[in-house]
Amino acid sequence: MTEAVLTLNAGSSSLKVALFPASGDQPMVTGLVDSIGPNAALKLKNERGEAIAPVPGDMSTHAGAMQTVVASLRRAYPDLDLVAIGHRVVHGGDRHTAPALVDAAELQALDALSPFAPLHQPHNLAGIRAAMESFPGVPQVACFDTAFHRNHPWVNDTFALPRSFYDEGVRRYGFHGLSYDYVSGELARTAPQLAEGRVVIAHLGNGASMCALQDGRSMASTMGFSALDGLPMGTRSGQLDPGVLLYLMDQRGMSAAEISDLLYKKSGLLGLSGLSNDMRKLEAAGTPDAAQAIDYFVFRAQREVGAMAAALGGIDALVFCGGIGENSRLIRARICERLDWMGIEIDHQRNAANDRVISSEMARTTVMIIPTNEELVIARAARKAADLNKSNQL
Amino acid sequence: MTEAVLTLNAGSSSLKVALFPASGDQPMVTGLVDSIGPNAALKLKNERGEAIAPVPGDMSTHAGAMQTVVASLRRAYPDLDLVAIGHRVVHGGDRHTAPALVDAAELQALDALSPFAPLHQPHNLAGIRAAMESFPGVPQVACFDTAFHRNHPWVNDTFALPRSFYDEGVRRYGFHGLSYDYVSGELARTAPQLAEGRVVIAHLGNGASMCALQDGRSMASTMGFSALDGLPMGTRSGQLDPGVLLYLMDQRGMSAAEISDLLYKKSGLLGLSGLSNDMRKLEAAGTPDAAQAIDYFVFRAQREVGAMAAALGGIDALVFCGGIGENSRLIRARICERLDWMGIEIDHQRNAANDRVISSEMARTTVMIIPTNEELVIARAARKAADLNKSNQL
Repeated sequence: MTEAVLTLNAGSSSLKVALFPASGDQPMVTGLVDSIGPNAALKLKNERGEAIAPVPGDMSTHAGAMQTVVASLRRAYPDLDLVAIGHRVVHGGDRHTAPALVDAAELQALDALSPFAPLHQPHNLAGIRAAMESFPGVPQVACFDTAFHRNHPWVNDTFALPRSFYDEGVRRYGFHGLSYDYVSGELARTAPQLAEGRVVIAHLGNGASMCALQDGRSMASTMGFSALDGLPMGTRSGQLDPGVLLYLMDQRGMSAAEISDLLYKKSGLLGLSGLSNDMRKLEAAGTPDAAQAIDYFVFRAQREVGAMAAALGGIDALVFCGGIGENSRLIRARICERLDWMGIEIDHQRNAANDRVISSEMARTTVMIIPTNEELVIARAARKAADLNKSNQL
Repeated sequence: MTEAVLTLNAGSSSLKVALFPASGDQPMVTGLVDSIGPNAALKLKNERGEAIAPVPGDMSTHAGAMQTVVASLRRAYPDLDLVAIGHRVVHGGDRHTAPALVDAAELQALDALSPFAPLHQPHNLAGIRAAMESFPGVPQVACFDTAFHRNHPWVNDTFALPRSFYDEGVRRYGFHGLSYDYVSGELARTAPQLAEGRVVIAHLGNGASMCALQDGRSMASTMGFSALDGLPMGTRSGQLDPGVLLYLMDQRGMSAAEISDLLYKKSGLLGLSGLSNDMRKLEAAGTPDAAQAIDYFVFRAQREVGAMAAALGGIDALVFCGGIGENSRLIRARICERLDWMGIEIDHQRNAANDRVISSEMARTTVMIIPTNEELVIARAARKAADLNKSNQL
């Protein structure tokens, strides 16, 4: 038998999957179902990067997509023993500070949080539901993007609204918690003294946020109630004056659905550049609008490093991760170039080489790149649940 | 003849007035019409603080209120020669970088900006309209809260929305410009070397914002499109995740008017404390909710000092003004106490004495209190217009 855990990340029309062995950090399989619906496509590859042929199947729903994935995995690994399934879930509310086993009651509780993340939570839960049906008795583990931030101070958990809104759940949850969990863990493993200090992690990808950590604990994040706030993103606006939404409602007569579509899908780098949500394309484009979109991204990132440092009372390390943070030497250099007042100074050779430490030898503040690995965080939580499940069965 | 200029600050149901002589910084008269409508009340006092008896009159409209003010002034100063009238106007759009003479065409142009500030602009313009009717031929000068910020860099003028929104006027205008104009002028007069550097001015009153200045020029502000954004205020929310507004619309079914009422009138210190919008009352109250409201105010101010410093690439001076900034030693001390990483260190004796410089001798960053004087900025603009008017008539 090949014991393994499956990790699932279900979006509105996609399903990211990875299969991890019982131990070790390398997935045996990674894959993606794209465009769930009549034109869905499944791609799987093994640890050597070779394509695994998918078994034909109906992928018009999340459940169908999952069954097709599993059938394909079973054909490729006939002795596969799936001991747990880990799910990325965007919202754990104010209760979950760690991954949680999901049963029918918990699923219902998580569903009650859907109004807080209507674009993501229902799809995440559809993935769990499908997995529960396909694998009765296998532990289903939800790993929440909010959990890592749950213990930050009250001033970073609230907005300045009447108290009743806080009580009903209008809070600064913070997201990208799986990424911060992984990166802060790696920092603690490789640079324990730094990890005890004041660290700002910049998760810069198609989604982007920053987290301010003291002694490995999240104290503040640039994301708040939703995945819209803070830094500009590929297609999301980031920080926006609430007066702009009142203007869009009142003067433009836009509905919530229209504003949501604008702010989630048509704004950010795409909106400013008029070209693309992809930083690589903007860097290559060289048009004035693309350059301005990059300027804006860089400026807002600098601004929020200042804000996160203020939340910590200073800064000892700045860590980049995420697709842009890990791969764009230009963006890293540009963000850092006006942060010298914070003791930040990049070594351009190290930066160009994508080294782990990219600050100069003499710099007061360490700047690092730590590639994130959200799937591994999910796999580890799933393994832990599988172990507990086994020991309970003894 | 007693030559004088009148300054007017017209709110939704109030009219603040001051009468300034042809030269000098002290107003001859200050006054307020409260609750414009059937129960309006007018209070006026002279430079010695003595009450000036109001002439009875109909103050059910802005025009009526103004005529009553003027009639009262004329009785108290029979030889009064009003050479210009200066008006505070919240919004000057992207065009006005300085005060402007207002004629019928300009009034129409300013009215076209009302959708950007529906709660303030129409009242400001009602004040101008009333003054034009009462004083035909007297120069009417509009002094804009936005003008001081008009030259800041593009990254601080835009949001990450599709370009068309910027083109139609959805920009980060910034407000409290009259206050920043006055305070930065005072700084330049009294500490010219500092004024050439990187200065953050914290205007903390019932409305609150910060401005980042380089060489006396506004580079960034915490307020953006509306007077809602940035720091929490007496009754306004300050920064708010756009996702919260989508939630209020979508899940709570709230209208633009209801959300506007919530965010402008029931949030901020009042919303968090459940007690008052007045910092003095919260400091005196000592209840847990009042203490938390203060904590939030202090934290958000610290956060934004960090962000403003990042916009400047560092900080040489932090200047407090506004009702809270000028008078609350507690709030000043609490904001500064975790900003030591920025070279900020308060001398507690100086702070308790409300000295002009309140940082300690050895501190790298100077911290000051400069009482603001928005009326004087308006009066000076009105005087200048009167002088131009005279020289044109020669």
